[in-house]
Amino acid sequence: MPIRILVTGGTFDKQYDEIHAKLVFKDSQVGEMLRLGRCRVDVQIRTVMMIDSLDMSDADRQAIVQNCRQCEEKKIVITHGTDTMVETAAALAGSEGIGEKTIVLTGAMIPYAFGSSDGMFNLGSALSFVQTLPPGVYVAMNGRYFNWNQVRKNRQTGVFEPVVS
Amino acid sequence: MPIRILVTGGTFDKQYDEIHAKLVFKDSQVGEMLRLGRCRVDVQIRTVMMIDSLDMSDADRQAIVQNCRQCEEKKIVITHGTDTMVETAAALAGSEGIGEKTIVLTGAMIPYAFGSSDGMFNLGSALSFVQTLPPGVYVAMNGRYFNWNQVRKNRQTGVFEPVVS
Amino acid sequence: MPIRILVTGGTFDKQYDEIHAKLVFKDSQVGEMLRLGRCRVDVQIRTVMMIDSLDMSDADRQAIVQNCRQCEEKKIVITHGTDTMVETAAALAGSEGIGEKTIVLTGAMIPYAFGSSDGMFNLGSALSFVQTLPPGVYVAMNGRYFNWNQVRKNRQTGVFEPVVS
Amino acid sequence: MPIRILVTGGTFDKQYDEIHAKLVFKDSQVGEMLRLGRCRVDVQIRTVMMIDSLDMSDADRQAIVQNCRQCEEKKIVITHGTDTMVETAAALAGSEGIGEKTIVLTGAMIPYAFGSSDGMFNLGSALSFVQTLPPGVYVAMNGRYFNWNQVRKNRQTGVFEPVVS
Repeated sequence: MPIRILVTGGTFDKQYDEIHAKLVFKDSQVGEMLRLGRCRVDVQIRTVMMIDSLDMSDADRQAIVQNCRQCEEKKIVITHGTDTMVETAAALAGSEGIGEKTIVLTGAMIPYAFGSSDGMFNLGSALSFVQTLPPGVYVAMNGRYFNWNQVRKNRQTGVFEPVVS
Repeated sequence: MPIRILVTGGTFDKQYDEIHAKLVFKDSQVGEMLRLGRCRVDVQIRTVMMIDSLDMSDADRQAIVQNCRQCEEKKIVITHGTDTMVETAAALAGSEGIGEKTIVLTGAMIPYAFGSSDGMFNLGSALSFVQTLPPGVYVAMNGRYFNWNQVRKNRQTGVFEPVVS
Repeated sequence: MPIRILVTGGTFDKQYDEIHAKLVFKDSQVGEMLRLGRCRVDVQIRTVMMIDSLDMSDADRQAIVQNCRQCEEKKIVITHGTDTMVETAAALAGSEGIGEKTIVLTGAMIPYAFGSSDGMFNLGSALSFVQTLPPGVYVAMNGRYFNWNQVRKNRQTGVFEPVVS
Repeated sequence: MPIRILVTGGTFDKQYDEIHAKLVFKDSQVGEMLRLGRCRVDVQIRTVMMIDSLDMSDADRQAIVQNCRQCEEKKIVITHGTDTMVETAAALAGSEGIGEKTIVLTGAMIPYAFGSSDGMFNLGSALSFVQTLPPGVYVAMNGRYFNWNQVRKNRQTGVFEPVVS
């Protein structure tokens, strides 16, 4: 069975709008990234939304939960802004109907459109963790994975750190 | 305990020598790639050799086996040329003293020095598989992992494929 | 005699601040760009300011004029935001004491820090025009050069166009 | 009248063949480079050959001369391997029927396909010199231009140097 990839936006997928001189969302670049990575994992990509995770509402989170609940796939990768990735992970973990699924949230500190992005590394990492971790909700950043309730983003350093619960 | 990374060369680590107009090996770029990926996994990198895998001798393979056997770490990633990655995986699997270790070989079809490389994706993938797979010898390419004796490189397409054993 | 390069900021020199998730100015990247271009032209680089050209005040423009007037070099390249590049060119053309100098303003639509920037192309272009054009004030964008009073930026397309004066 | 661009290959246009793990020629990337540079100069691109300049025969050079002689355009940029760029410049300068044309040869030390290429810088430079230099045959490298008989490539450093004639 394929792996479901849900795209929600975040720094990961920001692009540069040269007319207005700012970072914006256009179409997701996840498909292009998988081609660049010569990825041969069977995936189904769906763009659920394209927003900054700081702008994500409760309704947006419920839309993500719904997508995870309703899709047939048992393994799901979610690309997400880093600022509220942990909140969305908690919303997923607290929802019914996803208990048998392995869900891995990932993102990037630098947009993929920059040459120096961490996006390819993180996407390769998340796609690998989702294939091997038992059911549950995880955050995959900085080459590591964390259970949804044992991680936080350090806003000073930009690094995801373990939390002693 | 940290993860051991053994560097052996391969396309992954080729660089362009502008004076002689050809691809060569200089120092490994694996450390720089991990910095770019904002990797926070505790790793120990050792360059064992810097060669094309088509030039790899039995003695070279034994040097890799020795490094895997003698290091304290239980989890090992090996960067390797793709052409004989499967042979080295077989040499490792047939050796004594590594049975309790998880060893993941990876590489790239395009040198990291090119903007369009699959190296970052593969490195993120291999580092993630090694953290979650049980002891054994694996090849991680194209976002997938394979047991050492269930994979081959398709020379026409450049893709690693499952082999029915 | 060397060529003077005056750095004033603009899109050209924007970088990504991954902690605050926005484009900012840090140190100028012009020196690095010249190294990447294997440039062997004798240049003196001076950072006059690092600002968006939409934020440029009359006093800022006078600082640029002063720098052009006082430097010994007869050939000057100015890196500048594209939105008010033409205004600064006009301020220079209307000033005393620079009549014998060749001054070329250039910039970029995409920050150099992006892989897809037009910055290297424009920098190579401006440095070449300044070596060969007679004294005067010019804008060099899109591979072309324009006299200061015969050009405007088309805000819809981002392209610099000739103006019939 | 447009500028003629003649493509002959060279490091400039080398690409990586991931199946055979070597640098090869495919279609020229000059058109893509001009798009990336947001170039609005009116150009006509013609691929005359795609070869290493060390493999260039007298007949190949005559083909380049013929193209320069027969095209309507008075301004011509030639992309060329660096090793024998000066020989081709000499062949052009010694030929009849091109005396009223401005011809600028350029190339790159690093293939454009690498993120770290000097190709965009050199292409921007050559296109600018050809618009402003008087009729003659020139080499444009390292941000500088040279008359055809006053330059050589330093094979140790890869830099084009003035020759006292």
